[in-house]
Amino acid sequence: MILFFAPHTCSLASHIALEHAGAMYEIRKVDFASSEQRSEEYMQVNPKGRVPALVTDAGILTETPAILAYIAQAYPEAELAPLDDPFEFARVQSFNSYLCSTVHVAHAHRQRGTRWADDPAALEAMKKKVPQAVGDAFRLIDEELLRGPWVMGDRYGICDMYLFTLAQWLEADGVSPDTLPRVAEHRERMAQDPAVRRAIDAELTA
Amino acid sequence: MILFFAPHTCSLASHIALEHAGAMYEIRKVDFASSEQRSEEYMQVNPKGRVPALVTDAGILTETPAILAYIAQAYPEAELAPLDDPFEFARVQSFNSYLCSTVHVAHAHRQRGTRWADDPAALEAMKKKVPQAVGDAFRLIDEELLRGPWVMGDRYGICDMYLFTLAQWLEADGVSPDTLPRVAEHRERMAQDPAVRRAIDAELTA
Repeated sequence: MILFFAPHTCSLASHIALEHAGAMYEIRKVDFASSEQRSEEYMQVNPKGRVPALVTDAGILTETPAILAYIAQAYPEAELAPLDDPFEFARVQSFNSYLCSTVHVAHAHRQRGTRWADDPAALEAMKKKVPQAVGDAFRLIDEELLRGPWVMGDRYGICDMYLFTLAQWLEADGVSPDTLPRVAEHRERMAQDPAVRRAIDAELTA
Repeated sequence: MILFFAPHTCSLASHIALEHAGAMYEIRKVDFASSEQRSEEYMQVNPKGRVPALVTDAGILTETPAILAYIAQAYPEAELAPLDDPFEFARVQSFNSYLCSTVHVAHAHRQRGTRWADDPAALEAMKKKVPQAVGDAFRLIDEELLRGPWVMGDRYGICDMYLFTLAQWLEADGVSPDTLPRVAEHRERMAQDPAVRRAIDAELTA
């Protein structure tokens, strides 16, 4: 498998999952600085012009929640999701859906505002609200959704990888981790995981 | 099961899925006009203050992609998703993730802009770009993602219910269905499905 990624983006979650699953894969960097994600070549891989994209023998997958669930199902021995319990599996999907449709979207209004408005003043107004929108979403996670010690309780899995990835952006989004004690503790614990370290190091040296 | 819904929102997708699955369920309307979704009582059901929320014996589920996948898994005889093929199931998740994180979000900038900015001029700037942002996302669906005759090809399923639901908003979002021939044809075909009609009628008379 080939994972198309860019450093400091949400593709890290899929990268950690591949590393944890013990999958045979390689990573390929998409250079956002030169807008490679919009190049003709990359648009053949992912016509959305975004990362991640996972090339498998069966075809190409995009969207983090889908890639994470796929890796969990393709490597069941890694036990990255409660595959045998439809309700618990749905709770995993629900958490990951919230991350992609609310948390990541709130964050994206800081640097990707042109998706939703053109007026420079509007882009500034969006940036201004990022600390509140991202902070509110993370507070819900901290107070309600993160069961502890892992997102889903006792079992570590794909929700943890995704939460850790988006929690990397807190400071840049103007949200103090001090206001999110449980998320901050989770992030610290995740950062010590050797598989997480390997994934981050590989991205920074690729 | 109890589905908390509001008419003309994305909760319709879950409603259609329950109807198609032959599930035992009732629907309960959340009155957006009186901001019932923010009431203390409803926040106990869904602390996000949104619909849909599905109350099951095992607990409460939120987020459309998760609810749809849960219904498909809980009622396998209805064949609403390719449950035995992890890659095809991931493609379903990928499509539904795109709908929740890109299509629905683009649409939400028309009436829910205060999630991301406070300045009235910024809210107007967001509204102005909705036809383009929603149109671009639907064009990708029309040209690349919708395999035909159903989203995933020959097999009807949860992606079709979700796409149909969001395609209800095209005209109000300033996107002409004439520019989306395959999506428009899909919407028309879906509208004739008796289960879809039952769900819509039940919502409008609830």
